[in-house]
Amino acid sequence: MEQEDVLLVQVGGAAAWPEWQAAFQAAAPGLRVRAFDDPAVDPATVTHALVWQPEPGWLARFPHLRLILSAAAGVDHILADPQLPALPIVRMVTPETAERMGDFVLFAALGMVRELPALIDSQRERRWSPRLTGRLASQTTVGVMGLGQLGAHVAGRLRAAGFQVMGWSRSAKQLPGIECLGGQADWPDFLSRSEILVNLLPGTPETAAILDAAAFARLPAGACLINVGRGSHVDEQALLDALDQGRLGAALLDVFDLEPLPAGHALWSHPRVIVTPHIASTASRAARARQAAHTIAADRSGGAIDHLYLHARGY
Amino acid sequence: MEQEDVLLVQVGGAAAWPEWQAAFQAAAPGLRVRAFDDPAVDPATVTHALVWQPEPGWLARFPHLRLILSAAAGVDHILADPQLPALPIVRMVTPETAERMGDFVLFAALGMVRELPALIDSQRERRWSPRLTGRLASQTTVGVMGLGQLGAHVAGRLRAAGFQVMGWSRSAKQLPGIECLGGQADWPDFLSRSEILVNLLPGTPETAAILDAAAFARLPAGACLINVGRGSHVDEQALLDALDQGRLGAALLDVFDLEPLPAGHALWSHPRVIVTPHIASTASRAARARQAAHTIAADRSGGAIDHLYLHARGY
Repeated sequence: MEQEDVLLVQVGGAAAWPEWQAAFQAAAPGLRVRAFDDPAVDPATVTHALVWQPEPGWLARFPHLRLILSAAAGVDHILADPQLPALPIVRMVTPETAERMGDFVLFAALGMVRELPALIDSQRERRWSPRLTGRLASQTTVGVMGLGQLGAHVAGRLRAAGFQVMGWSRSAKQLPGIECLGGQADWPDFLSRSEILVNLLPGTPETAAILDAAAFARLPAGACLINVGRGSHVDEQALLDALDQGRLGAALLDVFDLEPLPAGHALWSHPRVIVTPHIASTASRAARARQAAHTIAADRSGGAIDHLYLHARGY
Repeated sequence: MEQEDVLLVQVGGAAAWPEWQAAFQAAAPGLRVRAFDDPAVDPATVTHALVWQPEPGWLARFPHLRLILSAAAGVDHILADPQLPALPIVRMVTPETAERMGDFVLFAALGMVRELPALIDSQRERRWSPRLTGRLASQTTVGVMGLGQLGAHVAGRLRAAGFQVMGWSRSAKQLPGIECLGGQADWPDFLSRSEILVNLLPGTPETAAILDAAAFARLPAGACLINVGRGSHVDEQALLDALDQGRLGAALLDVFDLEPLPAGHALWSHPRVIVTPHIASTASRAARARQAAHTIAADRSGGAIDHLYLHARGY
């Protein structure tokens, strides 16, 4: 019965709950939305759960759960639960997600072209460094790993802003104005020409540590890495070695093996690394609440569910 | 006689001379190029001078000087010489100048949208701040002050990248996709809608301190300033006050009243200010040597001289 549906929200902890509550009140006033730790909720009434990193076993407590909604585009944090119920999982892809990712990667790529890490370092030391003139975007080749919805949008935005853009994906795609490579056969060639490498692959077992010492060794000397995919794609020690050997010129990292990045981690203080806190494509809570309400309405009405996670393709 | 023409280079001091020499050797092997302090040069043979901030009176020492070439797009540092000879001055506008400025302002505007100053601050303190999600470029209005060659290019680049763009100039221009305002009458309206204000005005007496407390008070609360025009356009104390009162959210400043920015200046360490060392549109020395050689060749052959400074228009 529709009016008894309950959505539990387990994203951002207790501090985030008032904002989620207000966002759902605005997006879907009729929807019954409760905090994940609300003691008044009868587990048998819970039909939907919006989650980021659910504790192992938590989702299995709800016998009438119908749909698991991820709070982000990735679902690997949900799949890590060994007691995960066999239910459909919906990725959080809002109308903003690709656009936000595009804004962020364009910012990051232009920052690399204009030597942002060195500029930050100079300012910290109050050093006037007029030789940090960087180079032109139009004379810089960006290689985009992953050409799904996000990757294709990002590649197009980079191209429109003047960069030379190549793309690489498991099987080669076709995108206007972008040289698309595919598969293992093209991988060495793709790396050897990527002056800025942007990782947008989904987090799957096949792509774990794909960016290792061997991959970094194939990049042009002084290349830059922008990682907005998953921390698990990067061998972090190999990355630090490649930076210290000068093989990599700089890196902007939004995702890490361990998040939050531990306070003692060497990446925080490396002078040629910019650390951002997994914010590349995070939509506002208002936008995510609207998208979640839209998905739940489609589920109730028997309509099509967008952005369903499919195990076979890995996203 | 052509073969007796001599170009003196007074840009970047002794440290920069070897690179200038090599750049001119590549661009114009037949051109006689000498360092500004070369004791072997007979002042009577000097016909052209490439300068950035010439010492007062220095240019008056060359009786057969024909043309003064600025090492940058601005000429105010040359005009400051009270003994300046009455000679044509050529602004350094290379094919790269506008493109570099476009890359830089696009980087800066996306950085403001994505809360770059707060991200830098977070990294410095090893603080994981996942709420720094920023906003969308497409929902942000950038106001561009100055719609000359650089300003028009920058406005177009911002528009192409998805920003809402307004322009303001002394007399209103027409640019595709950009709402152009003009003159004193439109100034308050222009400011009140500029969520990111980009200053690209040339340095003229009329525009000195145009960005003062009254101007900052008209901006939307939390607006950001990007100054790539001249330091003299900004009342720096009013800027610091506006930042501390929260009226301005952040500033990215590439130009300053005094350059290099003195080590003790409060702007270096303000947590919401990004300081860059006047590098927004600096072309490489190779590109500038090519442009200077091109100008000198045009002068010798009686051809048209591009990018001549005209006092009446102020640039």
